Amino acid sequence: MSLLVTGSIAIDTIKTPYGISENCLGGSSVYFSMAASFFTPVRFVGVVGADFPFDLEQVFNGRDVDLTGLEVRKESKTFRWAGTYHENMDDRTTDSVELNVLAEVPPSVPKEFKDSTFVFLANTTPALQLQLLAQVDEPEFVAVDTMNIWIEGHLDDLKTLLKKIHCLIINEDEARMLAVESNLIKAGEKILNMGPSVVILKKGESGSIMCNADGDKFILPAYPATDVKDPTGAGDSFAGGFMGYLAQSGKVDFETLKAAIAYGTVVASFAIADFSLGGLASIDKADIDNRFGTLRKLTQF
Amino acid sequence: MSLLVTGSIAIDTIKTPYGISENCLGGSSVYFSMAASFFTPVRFVGVVGADFPFDLEQVFNGRDVDLTGLEVRKESKTFRWAGTYHENMDDRTTDSVELNVLAEVPPSVPKEFKDSTFVFLANTTPALQLQLLAQVDEPEFVAVDTMNIWIEGHLDDLKTLLKKIHCLIINEDEARMLAVESNLIKAGEKILNMGPSVVILKKGESGSIMCNADGDKFILPAYPATDVKDPTGAGDSFAGGFMGYLAQSGKVDFETLKAAIAYGTVVASFAIADFSLGGLASIDKADIDNRFGTLRKLTQF
Repeated sequence: MSLLVTGSIAIDTIKTPYGISENCLGGSSVYFSMAASFFTPVRFVGVVGADFPFDLEQVFNGRDVDLTGLEVRKESKTFRWAGTYHENMDDRTTDSVELNVLAEVPPSVPKEFKDSTFVFLANTTPALQLQLLAQVDEPEFVAVDTMNIWIEGHLDDLKTLLKKIHCLIINEDEARMLAVESNLIKAGEKILNMGPSVVILKKGESGSIMCNADGDKFILPAYPATDVKDPTGAGDSFAGGFMGYLAQSGKVDFETLKAAIAYGTVVASFAIADFSLGGLASIDKADIDNRFGTLRKLTQF
Repeated sequence: MSLLVTGSIAIDTIKTPYGISENCLGGSSVYFSMAASFFTPVRFVGVVGADFPFDLEQVFNGRDVDLTGLEVRKESKTFRWAGTYHENMDDRTTDSVELNVLAEVPPSVPKEFKDSTFVFLANTTPALQLQLLAQVDEPEFVAVDTMNIWIEGHLDDLKTLLKKIHCLIINEDEARMLAVESNLIKAGEKILNMGPSVVILKKGESGSIMCNADGDKFILPAYPATDVKDPTGAGDSFAGGFMGYLAQSGKVDFETLKAAIAYGTVVASFAIADFSLGGLASIDKADIDNRFGTLRKLTQF
């Protein structure tokens, strides 16, 4: 099955207790594509400015990531994000954001990508996500990421979007905010009533909970990582492993979704072990499969 | 195998978003005994004052809880605790504490309990836990609960105790404090170096992590409870299910410990569904076994 991702491409500056990485490559679609490419070919849609210093062909060298949807705007500047992670590595402060090209019209989905069956709409305004989704013909499974500022300020657009998609991937605090419900399980059930047939509630270092419209639930802890240098991109790497495995399998039954969550969890655990894309660049599929086996052993009784 | 518990017997006043329960029965050894009695006979050691209004024979009616170690001090008052739980039900404020009889010499372990093989020392000062442990002949598996105030103010006693026991059950924040290590997995490994062969790290509504001196690990989410009225006693009920299952099995190999963690998790999920002992009083062993099966289904892939 074909997998399309739309999301940000970023120049990041990241501070953690383990060091600083200035002007490194980041962005939701970059992390997602690297993660998903272990499982399946990826169709990439994103936009940068003339200042973009990285060669994505080189970054994805040897991986099946189709960059036909990469747009370079000569009059624009690339999205920049700078953040600082605190001692517990789950909390972070955004030091600066320059939306730049992300504040302009969204990129176009190339005509050869319009028949994509699996689609991931990484985090951006719900209005842009709706515009991007409208450019794909008849996707079978659309997953979406969102965040607190869209729940607070763009709720009508977000509710329109939720009626058109299959899966929402959301942090636990944002789920509580969206559902106006403090119990996380009840919040998940309320969000299912807003449209998606699957909701994945991310709990950071405490793992994730999936629930679906049939009342099935699955709970998986995070991989117990002792080697955490930079959590940036953990959520997008999770989504990449999840969607990559689904597209590879070509199925979205609950058993397949469970395995996909486990693969997403494993890929995210590698992503956070080094700055920027370093954690994902240094592993192969066998590393992922080995750790998948370890995660199973750690959690089964 | 025989299971001994020493801990508090309390008169609690509890406020939660779901209501108020004034002067209800509580205390670590009471919750523990109720929980453990689903699995195995329990030997109970604790002390109350002349003001204690409950009949524990009646409370434990039909359960195999031996109250030979219950001491009533006519000149003393019973321990009292009052607390308020906030909206998320994981955070609580202690409104008042009257140590009363808990500030006196600890109760005696009756001579017919001295041959106990499984021992749980519920939360109190490490010095008192050491005195209680010294009254048991040669226990095979001793588990201990502790808390922040003993780590901060009684660290030497606690370190002495840790060298004499087999299993520490501790909240995640307290584990980080004891180990002086923010990464929870590394904190668990550091605590293993202090003496116990098994450490169980409790993460509230995010479940628990167990690690042992052989490098084995097990991670289990909490049961996804939607029915939470009063979290008081959740930790002691967890410990009761855990130790009760171990004593029933008579084994402490890692597979048995894993199942014991799952039983502890399930028993705790019933304990929080009603005020005081109501959640545990209204279920039977079949309810526990059914939910054990559900927890397995929720977490296996």
